[in-house]
Amino acid sequence: MFEQLGLIGCGLMGGSFALALKNAGLVQRVVGFSPSAATLQKALQLGVIDAPAASPEQAACGADIVLVAVPVSATEATLQWIAPAVTKQMLIMDVGSTKADVLAAGQRALGERIGSFVPAHPIGGKEKAGVEHADTKLYQGCQVILTPTAETLDPQRQQALTVWQALGCKVVQMSPEAHDAAFAAVSHFPHLLAFALMNAVTGQPQGQEFLSLAGPGFRDFTRIAASDPKVWRDILLSNCQQLLVQSQHLQTQLQAFEALMVQGDGAALEALIARASSARSQWHLKQHHHPKPAC
Amino acid sequence: MFEQLGLIGCGLMGGSFALALKNAGLVQRVVGFSPSAATLQKALQLGVIDAPAASPEQAACGADIVLVAVPVSATEATLQWIAPAVTKQMLIMDVGSTKADVLAAGQRALGERIGSFVPAHPIGGKEKAGVEHADTKLYQGCQVILTPTAETLDPQRQQALTVWQALGCKVVQMSPEAHDAAFAAVSHFPHLLAFALMNAVTGQPQGQEFLSLAGPGFRDFTRIAASDPKVWRDILLSNCQQLLVQSQHLQTQLQAFEALMVQGDGAALEALIARASSARSQWHLKQHHHPKPAC
Repeated sequence: MFEQLGLIGCGLMGGSFALALKNAGLVQRVVGFSPSAATLQKALQLGVIDAPAASPEQAACGADIVLVAVPVSATEATLQWIAPAVTKQMLIMDVGSTKADVLAAGQRALGERIGSFVPAHPIGGKEKAGVEHADTKLYQGCQVILTPTAETLDPQRQQALTVWQALGCKVVQMSPEAHDAAFAAVSHFPHLLAFALMNAVTGQPQGQEFLSLAGPGFRDFTRIAASDPKVWRDILLSNCQQLLVQSQHLQTQLQAFEALMVQGDGAALEALIARASSARSQWHLKQHHHPKPAC
Repeated sequence: MFEQLGLIGCGLMGGSFALALKNAGLVQRVVGFSPSAATLQKALQLGVIDAPAASPEQAACGADIVLVAVPVSATEATLQWIAPAVTKQMLIMDVGSTKADVLAAGQRALGERIGSFVPAHPIGGKEKAGVEHADTKLYQGCQVILTPTAETLDPQRQQALTVWQALGCKVVQMSPEAHDAAFAAVSHFPHLLAFALMNAVTGQPQGQEFLSLAGPGFRDFTRIAASDPKVWRDILLSNCQQLLVQSQHLQTQLQAFEALMVQGDGAALEALIARASSARSQWHLKQHHHPKPAC
């Protein structure tokens, strides 16, 4: 399907994409760039990339597919680097968790070449960052959101759809704004809450004693708090407005619970819990092809 | 070890205790009571109990060990029922998630027989309630908190320790107040947050669309929101004061995050996330004897 993947950023997300593409026989050669020489060396040793590039531009040069897998805040600078190498035939994608800011960065950096860029957000990942955790099957069975616009070229839009589907993903297309609102609600804000809860517990004098008593509920509730600080710094900054909206919704609900607790209104409290419990029981993770716990 | 277990409440927690005791050869006979005739019938069919009792008192009468496995709010009434059958040799335990209120209920209901009562909180469970989900191994590898007091008789305190250890549990003893403060932080408040978040998401006009895009992070974060409404109504009411304290800690931390997001202070934001991420990465669920995912 592709001759050369230019991989810019050889971490968990980029490395897993390269491995999956190679494993599926969808690419002949991967040229990778990382600002860290050690990471580049590891990526070579692990077979994630076939050749190292000295710059993002060199990784993109001659590639027919380019994946920009860097923290969201580095997207614009990366796209500026590769802009001279971008052709009308090239497919460029990212893997960032926010999309309105990524699209704006793309428009500034790529100008009239923006048609080659299809912003992508694969809903997967692990808490363990780094190319050493790259996994051929990371994206298998996951959802991938694409946010093409009216400027996106048709062949690239189609190629983006096809390549993620070939990796076993379910592809959903929507506007960048709709994406950011939805993911603020179901991903970014839960992460923010998990970070805040961990700091709230450990900030108390008896925090460590409390933690030693925590059980499986706490384990699962706080799992996402172990996520990568740089990646999440960028997401919280990029999607700030939608996060504040979600925070207000949560605080309103929390206050409703607290008022009923203080009033001792058991019947109304039970109804609120039943609403949450029923909604959660009815919800199931959408999985495609290969159900697996990590996705 | 015991001749007869009087099981009052034949749900997930009580049923699993009965099965585990029988499976380990620690009891010869289980007499069970449930206010629901259908539940009692199921418990008989599943071999959870050997004989049904017509009242809590009848279940306790002649037993050398009694487990009160009812919603926390029903503890006092249940202990009042069985009070006439309580002997100085009998071990009485509960499985409630709050302990100060349970102890107070025990003191009111049992009076001078309070020495036979050892309040217990096994840290386990599932989101699926009901005797049909009772599981011999539910408690294996879990922590159990016991909150005996100066009034507790020594033989009962020792028996309680021994029986939970025999089921593969790690037993920790502490005061009821210390228990309630710790579990507000690491269990009760996370549940409250998960309930509030589910209601916040589903209460928005696009809630169902948002939910359809949610991934594995959301799945794990909200797992505990599917918990039993009656059980959690009682816990939220019983531990109200400690929950309000934890809610204040969380809101303070959340506001710190939001202020940095609005200011665009990436360095300070990254430091806050790194603190949470590092604390969560270093924390591990304490498991005893038999590590298993459900505990």
